[in-house]
Amino acid sequence: MSFDRLQELIDKMGNPTVVGFDPALEHVPPSILDRHIAEKGETLEAAAAAVYEFNVGLIDALCDIVPAVKPQSAYYEVLGPQGVQTLKMTCDYAKSKGMYVICDVKRNDIGSTASAYSAAYLGSVKIGDTEIRPFDVDALTVNAYLGSDGIKPFIDAAVKYDKAMFALVKTSNPSAGEIQDRHIAGKEDAAFSESKQSDRPIAFSSTVYTAVGDLLEELSGDTAGKYGYTRVGAVVGATYPEETEFLRARLRHTFFLVPGYGAQGGSAAEALRAFDDNGRGAIINSSRAIIAAWKKTGGDYKESARAEALRMRDALKRTGSK
Amino acid sequence: MSFDRLQELIDKMGNPTVVGFDPALEHVPPSILDRHIAEKGETLEAAAAAVYEFNVGLIDALCDIVPAVKPQSAYYEVLGPQGVQTLKMTCDYAKSKGMYVICDVKRNDIGSTASAYSAAYLGSVKIGDTEIRPFDVDALTVNAYLGSDGIKPFIDAAVKYDKAMFALVKTSNPSAGEIQDRHIAGKEDAAFSESKQSDRPIAFSSTVYTAVGDLLEELSGDTAGKYGYTRVGAVVGATYPEETEFLRARLRHTFFLVPGYGAQGGSAAEALRAFDDNGRGAIINSSRAIIAAWKKTGGDYKESARAEALRMRDALKRTGSK
Repeated sequence: MSFDRLQELIDKMGNPTVVGFDPALEHVPPSILDRHIAEKGETLEAAAAAVYEFNVGLIDALCDIVPAVKPQSAYYEVLGPQGVQTLKMTCDYAKSKGMYVICDVKRNDIGSTASAYSAAYLGSVKIGDTEIRPFDVDALTVNAYLGSDGIKPFIDAAVKYDKAMFALVKTSNPSAGEIQDRHIAGKEDAAFSESKQSDRPIAFSSTVYTAVGDLLEELSGDTAGKYGYTRVGAVVGATYPEETEFLRARLRHTFFLVPGYGAQGGSAAEALRAFDDNGRGAIINSSRAIIAAWKKTGGDYKESARAEALRMRDALKRTGSK
Repeated sequence: MSFDRLQELIDKMGNPTVVGFDPALEHVPPSILDRHIAEKGETLEAAAAAVYEFNVGLIDALCDIVPAVKPQSAYYEVLGPQGVQTLKMTCDYAKSKGMYVICDVKRNDIGSTASAYSAAYLGSVKIGDTEIRPFDVDALTVNAYLGSDGIKPFIDAAVKYDKAMFALVKTSNPSAGEIQDRHIAGKEDAAFSESKQSDRPIAFSSTVYTAVGDLLEELSGDTAGKYGYTRVGAVVGATYPEETEFLRARLRHTFFLVPGYGAQGGSAAEALRAFDDNGRGAIINSSRAIIAAWKKTGGDYKESARAEALRMRDALKRTGSK
């Protein structure tokens, strides 16, 4: 879906949160895992079934207060094809409960391969005369290192199937800057270089992540919806609040998916820099802190997750209204 | 496996070729696809089964003359969880025939998520007391945009499980340069900037792809095998021969995986620039030209693929010995 529906869900619930479904097995309550192991043995099937039961419980507990889920593919792929089946079933169940589903796969490739990825997650594949939608999620994440050849096929699918994508711009991790923060020669500098006035100092007006962000806005073309945001979003980490503020001002038509809140160290005030003047245009992710809240609180994992999700919603609201 | 075994397979067969298993459905002979559709209907199951039969035939036809296969995950994911099952079965079958298996997944993430991906493809997951290896391939491809947080977990798994990885450095596609070729301030320049001698022109000594390559060599540490190559390889496109030559000279301990030969326009002479002075340290990929050779030649798809693989081997040999 375009970001219009996501924004409307956020507005309706007063909650710009997406819950990351990163079900590492240590986050699944032992009572669930043990029961499936008792039935199916110590197998990938047992683990995949336990994760699915865990996810269904979380979705039931969250779907009326949280607008979106973001399953992280790695935790499903590590359970083999059975895990990928659980990924698909989790996405389907979340959709059936009205949630917006962002599949966090960070896929990247070129040409017909990028088209195959976009068909897998956003579009369809034709078997004989039958069109089948393999995963059919609302949005996916993409890594843009390969340039427009690796972005356009996803945009084309997003337009055709009424979907969206988020590309990595400035990630939330400590080493994000090793490549992303490198200073590059911006357009002004290139023009300057050509003018051969080499005694003038060159101003580094741009970084790698800025170049990626600019490329996304350029490629997103006329895909903006009613809130002014295109179908091409960006991942911008809450752990880098100054960069977030800079990017919010620069990429005016780009919806932000913001990881790094909570467990990774980003505060509500920092995360809120991702929003526009109307309090729109971004969604903040929290994973472990919500899905594994039971490990801190004890008790029922669903109630713990719901309580933590409400706490996050209120923290964002309180900080936002200051 | 480390690259030692790959190099030894290459030397034994006199063939530095990896065949890309990119089974878009239009590359599968209709007789195979139709038979499975007749049995299972126009379903993802039918398509996944057809692709598996196609792949098994290709592996049987190639395993004594080609050292390695590189299944491209997108073409399996587009068939849903059933397709991922076919990916796993294809990797298993190729391994059982002695081939080196590079899973082309271009995964990328950080911390525990990157660890989950590396466990999925290179390592193991523990279910109860049982350790299970979900995909257990010899090497995978990785996108390094997230910096060392997104690379180290794969290196750790490669060391622990005797495996290897390839990170994208300079890709083969036309738009590769949009991000990868941007000029950045190298170390010399940074030192210069700090010295405030801003009337001296700054030499752009480095690009984004060079920075990624340098980071890989730095992180690969002491993982070199007997031919001097570490467990951290690089993807370097044959379509950029000058850059390939430059990178070969610069990254002396990095094994290269070279896409772009053939269908994408790279010649044998261009691809061979990826090799060291001993004719080692690289493997050249060809996908469509081999697996879909039957579409040009007619006749049996297995014989067509084998003939084309022999032709590629001989073209590389002839050019290399000039």
